[in-house]
Amino acid sequence: MAGEDTRNDVLEAARRARGASHGLALATRARKDAALHAMADGLLGAEAAVLAANAEDVRRAEEAGTPVNIVDRLRLTPDRLAAMAQGLRDVAGLPDPVGEVVRGGTLANGLELRQVRVPFGVVGMIYEARPNVTADAAGICLKSGNAVLLRGSSSARSSNAAIVEVLRAAAVATGLDADVVQLVPGDSHDSVKALMRARGLVDVLIPRGGAGLIRSVVEESTVPVIETGVGNCHVYVDQHADLDKALAIVVNAKTQRTSVCNAAESLLVHAEVADAFLPRVVAALQDAGVRIHGDDAFTAYDGVVPATEQDWGEEYLSLDISARVVPDLDEALRHIRRYSSQHSDAIVTEHQGTARRFVAEVDSAAVLVNASTRFTDGGEFGFGAEIGISTQKLHARGPMGLPEMTSTKYVVTGDGHVR
Amino acid sequence: MAGEDTRNDVLEAARRARGASHGLALATRARKDAALHAMADGLLGAEAAVLAANAEDVRRAEEAGTPVNIVDRLRLTPDRLAAMAQGLRDVAGLPDPVGEVVRGGTLANGLELRQVRVPFGVVGMIYEARPNVTADAAGICLKSGNAVLLRGSSSARSSNAAIVEVLRAAAVATGLDADVVQLVPGDSHDSVKALMRARGLVDVLIPRGGAGLIRSVVEESTVPVIETGVGNCHVYVDQHADLDKALAIVVNAKTQRTSVCNAAESLLVHAEVADAFLPRVVAALQDAGVRIHGDDAFTAYDGVVPATEQDWGEEYLSLDISARVVPDLDEALRHIRRYSSQHSDAIVTEHQGTARRFVAEVDSAAVLVNASTRFTDGGEFGFGAEIGISTQKLHARGPMGLPEMTSTKYVVTGDGHVR
Repeated sequence: MAGEDTRNDVLEAARRARGASHGLALATRARKDAALHAMADGLLGAEAAVLAANAEDVRRAEEAGTPVNIVDRLRLTPDRLAAMAQGLRDVAGLPDPVGEVVRGGTLANGLELRQVRVPFGVVGMIYEARPNVTADAAGICLKSGNAVLLRGSSSARSSNAAIVEVLRAAAVATGLDADVVQLVPGDSHDSVKALMRARGLVDVLIPRGGAGLIRSVVEESTVPVIETGVGNCHVYVDQHADLDKALAIVVNAKTQRTSVCNAAESLLVHAEVADAFLPRVVAALQDAGVRIHGDDAFTAYDGVVPATEQDWGEEYLSLDISARVVPDLDEALRHIRRYSSQHSDAIVTEHQGTARRFVAEVDSAAVLVNASTRFTDGGEFGFGAEIGISTQKLHARGPMGLPEMTSTKYVVTGDGHVR
Repeated sequence: MAGEDTRNDVLEAARRARGASHGLALATRARKDAALHAMADGLLGAEAAVLAANAEDVRRAEEAGTPVNIVDRLRLTPDRLAAMAQGLRDVAGLPDPVGEVVRGGTLANGLELRQVRVPFGVVGMIYEARPNVTADAAGICLKSGNAVLLRGSSSARSSNAAIVEVLRAAAVATGLDADVVQLVPGDSHDSVKALMRARGLVDVLIPRGGAGLIRSVVEESTVPVIETGVGNCHVYVDQHADLDKALAIVVNAKTQRTSVCNAAESLLVHAEVADAFLPRVVAALQDAGVRIHGDDAFTAYDGVVPATEQDWGEEYLSLDISARVVPDLDEALRHIRRYSSQHSDAIVTEHQGTARRFVAEVDSAAVLVNASTRFTDGGEFGFGAEIGISTQKLHARGPMGLPEMTSTKYVVTGDGHVR
C-alpha cells in the first residue's frame, strides 16, 4: 500500500508539473531571468534556514557512519551556497534557447518553414548526494522552459526540501507557477520507479550518479532517458608523441581531479616509446600518489601492481590508473573499442595521419588530440551551464547545455496552401 | 527452444552488423554513393527474381484472405521497382551528413573545438507490409553510415529476402561489407523481442507501422527508440479565417490521401463562422465521399453521424473525419491539447495574434498556419529522403532525413593542453 500511495503522489506531482509547464513554455526570457535572480536572492536570504536543514542531513549521515568524503560532498557552507546563487545568475545571463530558429527557409511553393526550439515540457532529474545539483538543475530547466521533478538522494532530503522551498517561493514572486520546480514525493525506491513509468507526463529523465543507478534507470524506464556520465577514459601515447606534452597530459588527466567522469582511468603507450616514456610516467604518477595497475611492461617498475582483466574496464574515480604497452595504433584502437565507456578518449601524437585515424575511429562523445580528457566539460566548452554529460548517441552526446534541454517544432506558414 | 534459437540468431546478426558498421562509418561519400547506384542497378537487373518472390507473397496473402487494399500495398510492379531504384539514386545525390561540422570554434585557451556528425552505428527498423520500405530504409541508413537490421512484415518475407540479397551483393561489389544490410532472422515475434533487447549492439530502433506496433516497441525496448508516425491531426477554422482557403485546406488535408499519418482526422470550427462555413464544408466533404462524425451543430446536417468520445481521439486513416464547433480559440487549444497525437495541427486564420498564439501553444511536431497538414513530409520539406516522421521530442521531431540519422561527437584539438 505504501508503494501504491507513493506512486499516486508521484503521478499527482507529475500532473501538476505538466500543468505548470504549459505556462512556463510561454514565459518570456525576461520573466525567467527575473525568477532566476529571485531564486539566487532567496537562497542568500535563507542562508540560515538552508544551512540548518543541511546540518540535519550531515548529522544523520555522520550517525550512519557515512564515509568522510561523502559527508563532505553533502555539506553546504556559506561559500557553497553563494556559489549556487551565482550559478543561477550565470544561467540568467545565458541566451534563451527557446524560440531559436534552428533552420528555416521558403519552399518552392512559397510555404515558409521554420524549425524552432521548444521546451521538452517536464524533465525528471534523478541524482545522488550533492545538494547543489538541486539548484543547478532547477535553474537550467527553468531557463530552458521545462518544469522539473527533482529526485535527489534521500541523504540530502532536508537540504533539498529547504532549497526547493526557496526556489518555489521565488518562482511565485515573479509570476510563475510554484510547480515549475518540485521535489518528487517519497524517498523510497518506489518514487523513482513511479517516475520512470510516468510516460506521457514526464518527457525525459536524466539520471546523474553511479553506474548502477544509471543502468537501472535505462533498463526500467518507459520515459525516454538521457544517459549520463560513466567515464572510463583513455590516454594513448603514440610513437610520434611529444613525450613532454604526453607526460603533462597523463598526469593532468589522472590527478587534477579524480572523482569526475572525465578523469583518465587508463593509459596506453606505444611500444616504440615505452623505454623512453615508462620511467618518466611511472615516476610522475607515483609522485602524485597514483597507484598503477599495469601489464608486464609496467610491473617491471617498483610499486606497480599487476592489472587484472577487470582493471581495463574500471572507472576508478580515485588515484588509480590501469596502464598497458601496445604494439601499434591498431591495438590501441581495439583496446579502446573494447573497454572505453565512450565518454572521452585522448591521443598524444605529432603525426597528422595517426591523429586523423584516431579521431575517425574512436567512437566516443569526445575525442581529444594533444589535450587532457579533463576538458570534456560544459564549462570548458563555453556552454556556461551543464546539466550533465551524455554518453548516449540519441538526442545529445557529450556536455549538455541549455540547447540540449530543448526539442524543436516545425512552424509552416502559408496562404491557403494545399497539395 | 525455438525462441532461444531465434534470439541467438538475432544477436549474431546484430554482432555482424556492429562489426560491419565500423568500416561503413569510415567509408567515403564516393564509395557510399557508388554502392547506392549499384543497388539501384541491381534491383533493375534482378526485376524478374524480385517480382517472382513478390508474387509468392501476394499469393500467400490472397490465400489467407488479406483485404484487397493491404494486398495492393504488398504488390510490386516494374514501375514500383523502378521507383525504388530511383529512390536509391536520389539518396546518392544528397549531401553526406557524416562529417558535417555542426558547431565549432576556438576556445579562450586555444583549444579547437568541433562538433561533428557521426553515424549512430547500427539501426534497427521494424516495419509493416510495403516492401519498398526495405530499399528506402537501407539506402538512407547506408548513406548516413549506419549498418541496418531490417525486420519487415512476415507477409513480405519473400520480397524482402530477394531485395536484400540484391542490396548485399551491390554492397560487396563496391567494397563494403555485405552485413551493412541484413534482414533480421526469424519472422515470429521472438525476433522483434530479441531486437528490442539488443542494447549495446543496436544503437537505435525505429518502428514504423500501426499504433499497436509502435506502443509495444516503446514499452518493451531497452534499445533507444524513435517513435514515429501516429497522426490524429486537426484543422481549426478560426473566426478570422478566409473561408475559401479554409474549405480548400480542410478538403485537401482530409481527402488528398487518406491512409497517411499527416491526413486530417478532426475539424474544429469557431462558432462565429459556423453558420457560414458548416453548410459549405459539409457539402464539400460529403461530395468527396467523407463521412462526418459530428457534434450537435454538425449532426443538424443530413448524413452527419454523431461523434462519440472515441471519435475525437481516432486516427481513421479513411474517408472519415470528426467535426466540432468550438466557442473560442481557448476551447480549440484545449481540445487539441487533449486529443492531438502531436503530429501536425493546422489553423486557418487571417488574424496575426491568433496565429501567433496557436503556433506558440500547440505542442506538435508541426504547426501549420493557412496550410494543409499534408505538407508535414520530408519530401515536401525538401529533405530529399525521409525515414519516418518522429512524434517524440527526444533527438528528432517531425520528418527525419539524413542528418536525423546521425549522432555527433566532439573533436578537441590542442598542443599539450592541460587544466
